[in-house]
Amino acid sequence: MKLRIGLLGGGRIGKLHGTNLQNAVQDAEVVVLADPFMNEDMEAWAGSIGIPKCTKDADEVFADPDVDAVFICSSTDTHANFIIKAAKAGKDIFCEKPIHTDIAKIKEAIAAAEDAGVKLQVGFVRRFDHNHKAVRDVVASGELGKTYVVKVTSRDPEGPPMSYVEVSGGIFNDMMIHDFDMVRYLSGSEVTEVNAVGAVLTDPEYAKYDDVDTAIVTLRFANGAIGVIDNCRTAPYGYDQRVEVHCEKGCVRDGNDLEHEAVVSRGDGVFSAKPTWFFLERYNDAFIEEEKEFVDAVLGNKPVPVDGNDGLQPVRIALAAKKSLKEGRTVRMDEIEG
Amino acid sequence: MKLRIGLLGGGRIGKLHGTNLQNAVQDAEVVVLADPFMNEDMEAWAGSIGIPKCTKDADEVFADPDVDAVFICSSTDTHANFIIKAAKAGKDIFCEKPIHTDIAKIKEAIAAAEDAGVKLQVGFVRRFDHNHKAVRDVVASGELGKTYVVKVTSRDPEGPPMSYVEVSGGIFNDMMIHDFDMVRYLSGSEVTEVNAVGAVLTDPEYAKYDDVDTAIVTLRFANGAIGVIDNCRTAPYGYDQRVEVHCEKGCVRDGNDLEHEAVVSRGDGVFSAKPTWFFLERYNDAFIEEEKEFVDAVLGNKPVPVDGNDGLQPVRIALAAKKSLKEGRTVRMDEIEG
Amino acid sequence: MKLRIGLLGGGRIGKLHGTNLQNAVQDAEVVVLADPFMNEDMEAWAGSIGIPKCTKDADEVFADPDVDAVFICSSTDTHANFIIKAAKAGKDIFCEKPIHTDIAKIKEAIAAAEDAGVKLQVGFVRRFDHNHKAVRDVVASGELGKTYVVKVTSRDPEGPPMSYVEVSGGIFNDMMIHDFDMVRYLSGSEVTEVNAVGAVLTDPEYAKYDDVDTAIVTLRFANGAIGVIDNCRTAPYGYDQRVEVHCEKGCVRDGNDLEHEAVVSRGDGVFSAKPTWFFLERYNDAFIEEEKEFVDAVLGNKPVPVDGNDGLQPVRIALAAKKSLKEGRTVRMDEIEG
Amino acid sequence: MKLRIGLLGGGRIGKLHGTNLQNAVQDAEVVVLADPFMNEDMEAWAGSIGIPKCTKDADEVFADPDVDAVFICSSTDTHANFIIKAAKAGKDIFCEKPIHTDIAKIKEAIAAAEDAGVKLQVGFVRRFDHNHKAVRDVVASGELGKTYVVKVTSRDPEGPPMSYVEVSGGIFNDMMIHDFDMVRYLSGSEVTEVNAVGAVLTDPEYAKYDDVDTAIVTLRFANGAIGVIDNCRTAPYGYDQRVEVHCEKGCVRDGNDLEHEAVVSRGDGVFSAKPTWFFLERYNDAFIEEEKEFVDAVLGNKPVPVDGNDGLQPVRIALAAKKSLKEGRTVRMDEIEG
Repeated sequence: MKLRIGLLGGGRIGKLHGTNLQNAVQDAEVVVLADPFMNEDMEAWAGSIGIPKCTKDADEVFADPDVDAVFICSSTDTHANFIIKAAKAGKDIFCEKPIHTDIAKIKEAIAAAEDAGVKLQVGFVRRFDHNHKAVRDVVASGELGKTYVVKVTSRDPEGPPMSYVEVSGGIFNDMMIHDFDMVRYLSGSEVTEVNAVGAVLTDPEYAKYDDVDTAIVTLRFANGAIGVIDNCRTAPYGYDQRVEVHCEKGCVRDGNDLEHEAVVSRGDGVFSAKPTWFFLERYNDAFIEEEKEFVDAVLGNKPVPVDGNDGLQPVRIALAAKKSLKEGRTVRMDEIEG
Repeated sequence: MKLRIGLLGGGRIGKLHGTNLQNAVQDAEVVVLADPFMNEDMEAWAGSIGIPKCTKDADEVFADPDVDAVFICSSTDTHANFIIKAAKAGKDIFCEKPIHTDIAKIKEAIAAAEDAGVKLQVGFVRRFDHNHKAVRDVVASGELGKTYVVKVTSRDPEGPPMSYVEVSGGIFNDMMIHDFDMVRYLSGSEVTEVNAVGAVLTDPEYAKYDDVDTAIVTLRFANGAIGVIDNCRTAPYGYDQRVEVHCEKGCVRDGNDLEHEAVVSRGDGVFSAKPTWFFLERYNDAFIEEEKEFVDAVLGNKPVPVDGNDGLQPVRIALAAKKSLKEGRTVRMDEIEG
Repeated sequence: MKLRIGLLGGGRIGKLHGTNLQNAVQDAEVVVLADPFMNEDMEAWAGSIGIPKCTKDADEVFADPDVDAVFICSSTDTHANFIIKAAKAGKDIFCEKPIHTDIAKIKEAIAAAEDAGVKLQVGFVRRFDHNHKAVRDVVASGELGKTYVVKVTSRDPEGPPMSYVEVSGGIFNDMMIHDFDMVRYLSGSEVTEVNAVGAVLTDPEYAKYDDVDTAIVTLRFANGAIGVIDNCRTAPYGYDQRVEVHCEKGCVRDGNDLEHEAVVSRGDGVFSAKPTWFFLERYNDAFIEEEKEFVDAVLGNKPVPVDGNDGLQPVRIALAAKKSLKEGRTVRMDEIEG
Repeated sequence: MKLRIGLLGGGRIGKLHGTNLQNAVQDAEVVVLADPFMNEDMEAWAGSIGIPKCTKDADEVFADPDVDAVFICSSTDTHANFIIKAAKAGKDIFCEKPIHTDIAKIKEAIAAAEDAGVKLQVGFVRRFDHNHKAVRDVVASGELGKTYVVKVTSRDPEGPPMSYVEVSGGIFNDMMIHDFDMVRYLSGSEVTEVNAVGAVLTDPEYAKYDDVDTAIVTLRFANGAIGVIDNCRTAPYGYDQRVEVHCEKGCVRDGNDLEHEAVVSRGDGVFSAKPTWFFLERYNDAFIEEEKEFVDAVLGNKPVPVDGNDGLQPVRIALAAKKSLKEGRTVRMDEIEG
């Protein structure tokens, strides 16, 4: 029996999840798509991948007895309320990150899911990447002993439009939040202190929105380890996603997936391929793995791999980083609501 | 409008193509599956990926007006006759390699397709691998000038069962045939001479079937270049697939795709991931690309990327290699029927 | 005509420079070795590499009219005074790092060399490493445009004896000082702000000496770039020395030299060689290059590649890092004497 | 006590050995240089590295009681006779490859050394390369089990002058001879059969001297393994020297040393360094290791690492390859004198 899914949101990320669920996740089927901007094109897309029903009204999905679970892929501001509604309707929930930018609202949503006894998985997809997962598995196996240093580098190939920067909540909130999740994943420990350095280097426009485009954040963890994340909005050679954990008995780190493994040696140098272009290319298989693990968790009644608290903590760390940058000092996590 | 495909053969390779056509190739749909061993399990599988009709009788497929094209994934001895029947029925044809082991039969099949004016694409999937294709593209671009040496290394992770060895036609026919295609693809030139060295090293059983498990074949090409292919039936570290072309202005070569890019540095050495295990893992995306290009060629009425002659020549080269090994001498291609 | 060199100090680093100067630097010859602990063994070593004269008294070297230049390889506390004496005697000076731990003393030494019009080169050997130099050359060429982020990772294979930790001045002073030089070298810009995080993770003994064994330091540069250095006293896989500069038009980074390029692929993984063990192995050729450039600068009357100010600034940054760690805040470089 | 060496030949290779022996091999000293073309420049060079005596007459060296051993670096045609003379004079012998092009003469020289009870080491320097040696050590350790396939790729950055081609004896004799030694070294087994393919591709001039510039040779070994060597006279990206041994339990292969480890990632691709340019750069440390092992073998009265038979066999294999190419057939080694 397949898990019957209501898909909330038919934008880029909704289409990505919908297509995967229909084509690559054996035990799931999308039975309805809801989007307030539903139109002919979106209906056609839904039809082309075999989604039988479309609506503008998300409430229809919550009320539908044939829907077992929802994928919340709508705009960020709707996430928390949709979680609450889905929980009340007894639907299991996959929600794209972030749950909300407001800590209290996140906690309310998490509580709603817990009270209803439904699953809530948050979409930190990078945990499902084959490279990062291999690094984490080595650390978690204990073969390298105690963790000393956790490092994450994350660069986008090109910056977002300024219209996005205006509303995104800033680099810590919309970009480095993945890395805040990653360091928790890799270290298996909570962040206790944050110090941020940032600069406007790629485009002076960022300054208008009180944002930076390049940032380095150092961290302390509860287990004693220390860490660092560096982010930049632009990297003309493509999406640069590398992690490294240095430990007592060794170091484990990963590199990028490349477009291909061909190497050309010429008189003027040796040329190899660039990293795969952006997150759709790099994390394509990770999205499928993420979806499968959610479906498995629901069908097998197992814990989800990324839970509500995993959705909450990176938002708190992002707030701490923002505060650190603004106040020019190290911020303790216990200064942040949560 | 989608290309309506009749799938002939529901074994391993048939299932692979069927699943991809249904899930990953937008402009195709499998409308019928024919297999003489059709049973409940196979029907269930067909149902699970949305193939609406099943039959034991391939002739039903050829007769079906709702079938535009066929994928021939049945046992090797049926390929040529199925091509002929499909051609007569006006269906476009994708046929798994090899078309046949008999040159005359291959030519008959090719002629049938030509006479009927249908497309015939042969399943040399490695041409669609991102790595090998990147190598070929560099050579074909001319940026490295004249081609000097073409090299291909191909090792399977483990040998086939002896029941397969008994009927496969030998290492040149069932394994190195891919590499004979590859050198034609990389060099853009025809083979003119072949010399083979072979040995039974991995398992003495091969000798019983007058076969070898390890072989090196040197080649001359019509464009003056020379080449070498080395094959081994076993490589405990996984599928090893590398090509290299050395040219006037440089050299281009590829490596294997790895399971992941994580690297562990410890006191006792540096450890990285193995190549992806076998052809299903390594050439998964290549199969999809191969299918898409067939569908595109049919729908857009363009030349297929691997045609009948591309199916014929590697079989001829395999015969030459076999003859060279047996007679202990260099064999010219004009000694071989064709 | 060769540059006649008086070698001050016959310990490990003195022997290293002495051997190179005799065997690998064509235009130099060591004419005298001075060491207060001169004994038969040291004399025998000197004889074995053709140093004709030995003494316990450094003043003999300064007074010797046959000495053109000195290599100061004695204990750190003697460096500044030896510079002053050598300068007064009109000898050109190569001095191992650091000049002194006291800023005023360093400035006094630099001034002495300037007043006397003699060359003063400081021994930051990593600038002469083929890998780091290749990175710097790319950045300095301008081909990557504006510099955004400078990163340095530096790990020793094993920690020093605690007797050394007791007197070394701490991790920023004795280990990360090389990296403070490296970021100035790579960025071509001065550090303006420093923030340090540190922890005692490899051995609790470090805490006794008010030191840490693992540290991450973020930096701001005058040219707007930001940077980060991470250090750890232990890395069981060997000396780990990597730098990275992310820029407007791309990123350049290096890796470690390995013991060899052989790679073993087995059923249980793929194994490659470790980095060369420690600084003597990694920076062997860099020491020779450093010595040659000093000799060339003196003989050709050209500027030295690492001057007095290059000796001063890393000591100042180390003081800032120490202060930042102690006070838990970002320290501006203008808070530090200099 | 140092081994006192008479250096025969002050050309490029003689200077290389002389410089290393004086500067990098602690237990050796060159006491005399003999060269029929001795002139002021050569004497000046000898003086600059501390060789106290020069002569035009090699016989003076053989007669000199203060000479313990000779390095024969003179023109190839003199090697065998110098070995015979040195042997009669009781000097231990290091001789550059090849001993001679005539099998009978080689055997006469080997016999002379054996009769006199002196050491005879032949200069196959690649055995001392850190990469190739690491590969051999893995194979020889037995950890990979039985050897299946031995592969060697060897390309020079640029072809020699035609004046050299005219007298060199051809590609098998002057270039691939190193690889014939390498496959014996890697496999630990003797070659039993040879098949050669060759072509004139880089420059039509080679044809005038009945030579080829590109060749692939397949081999059978006494231990059952098979192998292949490919050579090309030109590779504009630099000296390309790679070996690979595929075995029962895995595969070991090496890559080239690079000029440096810096990698530049840009919008138009990822750029890394070329291999070190030619044999002087690549095998610099190997030459020193080779010399040290000779000196150690003499001083410690141990077997030399590359003996007379190791000098003989590659010449025989080269003859077999030449014969195979000429006659267009596989040649058994027992067809070749020896």
